[in-house]
Amino acid sequence: MLERDIIQNWGFANVAENGRTTGFRIHLRNPNYRGLSSSLVDGVGVTVDGRSWSYEETAVELQGRRFPLAELRASTGARWNLDEPASVFVPLEGGLERGVHRVAVDVRLRAPYYPVEFQPNVFRAERPLTLVGGTDGTFKYGVSTYSYTGDMNTSMTLEDVMAEIHDIGATGIEILGEGNIPGYPAPSAEWIDSWHRNIAKYGLTPTNYGSWIDSRMWLDRDLTAQEGHEALARDIRLAAELGFSFVRPKIGVVSLDLQPHPIWEEAVERTLDLAAEKNIVICPEIHAPTPIRHPVVDDYISFVERTGTKNFGLLIDTGVFMTKPSLDGLDGKVPESEEDLPVPLRPLRVPASDLLDVLPYVVFVQAKFYEVDEHLEDLHIPWTDVLRTLKQGGYEGWLSSEYEGRREPYRGSVMVRRQHAMFRRLEAGL
Amino acid sequence: MLERDIIQNWGFANVAENGRTTGFRIHLRNPNYRGLSSSLVDGVGVTVDGRSWSYEETAVELQGRRFPLAELRASTGARWNLDEPASVFVPLEGGLERGVHRVAVDVRLRAPYYPVEFQPNVFRAERPLTLVGGTDGTFKYGVSTYSYTGDMNTSMTLEDVMAEIHDIGATGIEILGEGNIPGYPAPSAEWIDSWHRNIAKYGLTPTNYGSWIDSRMWLDRDLTAQEGHEALARDIRLAAELGFSFVRPKIGVVSLDLQPHPIWEEAVERTLDLAAEKNIVICPEIHAPTPIRHPVVDDYISFVERTGTKNFGLLIDTGVFMTKPSLDGLDGKVPESEEDLPVPLRPLRVPASDLLDVLPYVVFVQAKFYEVDEHLEDLHIPWTDVLRTLKQGGYEGWLSSEYEGRREPYRGSVMVRRQHAMFRRLEAGL
Repeated sequence: MLERDIIQNWGFANVAENGRTTGFRIHLRNPNYRGLSSSLVDGVGVTVDGRSWSYEETAVELQGRRFPLAELRASTGARWNLDEPASVFVPLEGGLERGVHRVAVDVRLRAPYYPVEFQPNVFRAERPLTLVGGTDGTFKYGVSTYSYTGDMNTSMTLEDVMAEIHDIGATGIEILGEGNIPGYPAPSAEWIDSWHRNIAKYGLTPTNYGSWIDSRMWLDRDLTAQEGHEALARDIRLAAELGFSFVRPKIGVVSLDLQPHPIWEEAVERTLDLAAEKNIVICPEIHAPTPIRHPVVDDYISFVERTGTKNFGLLIDTGVFMTKPSLDGLDGKVPESEEDLPVPLRPLRVPASDLLDVLPYVVFVQAKFYEVDEHLEDLHIPWTDVLRTLKQGGYEGWLSSEYEGRREPYRGSVMVRRQHAMFRRLEAGL
Repeated sequence: MLERDIIQNWGFANVAENGRTTGFRIHLRNPNYRGLSSSLVDGVGVTVDGRSWSYEETAVELQGRRFPLAELRASTGARWNLDEPASVFVPLEGGLERGVHRVAVDVRLRAPYYPVEFQPNVFRAERPLTLVGGTDGTFKYGVSTYSYTGDMNTSMTLEDVMAEIHDIGATGIEILGEGNIPGYPAPSAEWIDSWHRNIAKYGLTPTNYGSWIDSRMWLDRDLTAQEGHEALARDIRLAAELGFSFVRPKIGVVSLDLQPHPIWEEAVERTLDLAAEKNIVICPEIHAPTPIRHPVVDDYISFVERTGTKNFGLLIDTGVFMTKPSLDGLDGKVPESEEDLPVPLRPLRVPASDLLDVLPYVVFVQAKFYEVDEHLEDLHIPWTDVLRTLKQGGYEGWLSSEYEGRREPYRGSVMVRRQHAMFRRLEAGL
């Protein structure tokens, strides 16, 4: 699927030729109702941050061929189909800086069935776009499909998500097992093949697989420890078959402060041998409103100490570090004080330094966030502290983006790009 | 793809059991970020036009099984996956009337990882929905993919369009060759197979195939008649391979009143033998601002008379009958008089009776429209006149919906459903 906007969010990048950055490119959806021959594409004008390049100065890439205007007009054999993006190359020595840019385009298309006096048709569009830029990488970067909730199955396929992750230069994909696997818990062999094919195609590593132990599956009784084990084992087998290294079971809770159901310990312990056999680390998430210093976390660490297992650890959801409340779920009703906020929305303000106590047990970090603005500033999470602490503590695992802000169409893609541009900018200062 | 709204536009229909209409159904997208077991779906409350059915009164259908609430809560082995709709059955003797209804739902989902005090999570949604209702059919009804411009390739696949057409009880599909065929003009054998498989799956007949003779393909010279013939022949071969009966070439024009390029006659004549061999009728469209009584139409009819061909005819676009201007393209700037409107937006007000003169030559009707309101009234096209005249003149061909109003997401689907409900209501009075 392409994005609805003519200007695509993905594909915006500098272009290097022979080791020199000679310009940048923008991907466009065909704004017409029909596909057309390349010679009917009469160039694309581009404006970025107020600087303009006329349609005579850019080049249009269609089906792998780059056409300066004169060649485009005389061309044969190439087309701009409705299901294929065009790429506009804009010459600019050194390219654009990492960050958010205001981009506008004038796409000029000729239609012989209109009187020539009214030609070409000009389709204008504008949109802020984020140039992520590469990195050597202090951390391993990934993205959770959760970031695209609402877009997936309506305007993005799983393959589109993979392409998006690849496009921002991240290499890890985190999924929700019961969510992203068609026919879960028994996907077809054909689907499993396509999963592996696409993982290879987009150069990705399967990271964490989200699962659930639905302790209150029925109203009249809770799951037994054996049933909890069976649920977890089922997901570990499937996760391993798909190449994942981590499984996060979301365990049912029994109290307002999110104590996990007491079956958790036995259910997990019965599954440790399987996890070891499948090279999977089971990692429940430490998630607001549970802070890092909390009996739940102590229990998990005691479990590791008691069993000596290498197949159980902590997943830290960075929502615990939130310093300002996200008001996205409140329909504009800003409360007078934080005490008036629903508990899950109150910032926990866990100091990043709390991480150091538990870091030896941390196997995965979900980079939870709600909004990064056009200056690449996160409005809620103190990333400089968090990243510095992770680096100081020697964390070498994944940072897996988990966008959880407003679910307007395409906002997840836009925000994940901004978060990754921000990470790469921050890395330089660590 | 599913629609973004929780309440799906498609699937809204009365349900007959043993020949009796016992209720109606509504299709829903899973509003959660995860898939879940059927026992965690705690019923769906429904309100239609102010009348409510509680979550205890409806039944939820998942993966082909219908569960009343008690059975749903105790169920095992069924799921509501994110890529599959649930269907809610609402009991109502005799069902709902054809037309637009205001529908609201409360979808109740249980999440064991939330404290039980805050359960279930209730997802509320509302939306007007159109119940199309069946028909014996004075005419053959179809839909053009053009109706879904902007949605296709962003939120609808071609198969989604086929499913949508089937869902409203229409049987014809019209496509744009250079637009809807991946890899046009040389689709893969695999794609052609999938086309035929889906045509059979959704019980559709390929009707009209839109093509172009791009006379101004290059700036320095026009297409020759031979090149025009080759373009048309290419599309006729492809259309025939896909099972179409009609090909509409959109021919380049040479004047402000849309005189077709003079190559048209020779280009078409050279193609008549191929069209006869392939059982294709070539049918240029009579489209505003060209009315029915016009030299262009006379020329087309003379061509038929002179050649005696049965493989050329007229396609009438019902935009010529428009009585009130559609202001959709004007960004809210309503002009003082019609003379201030751009020519293509001025209503031509061709009397429907003009059809009778040319009906022997009419082989296809594109049911162009811009908006049908919640009372099933078209705001621009006088359908009662048009349908009555077509019936009076003995037209037995296709009426193929061509929605051309505003391109907001999903509006095409909504409007096509309304148009078909309107057609079926009007049929009764013809």
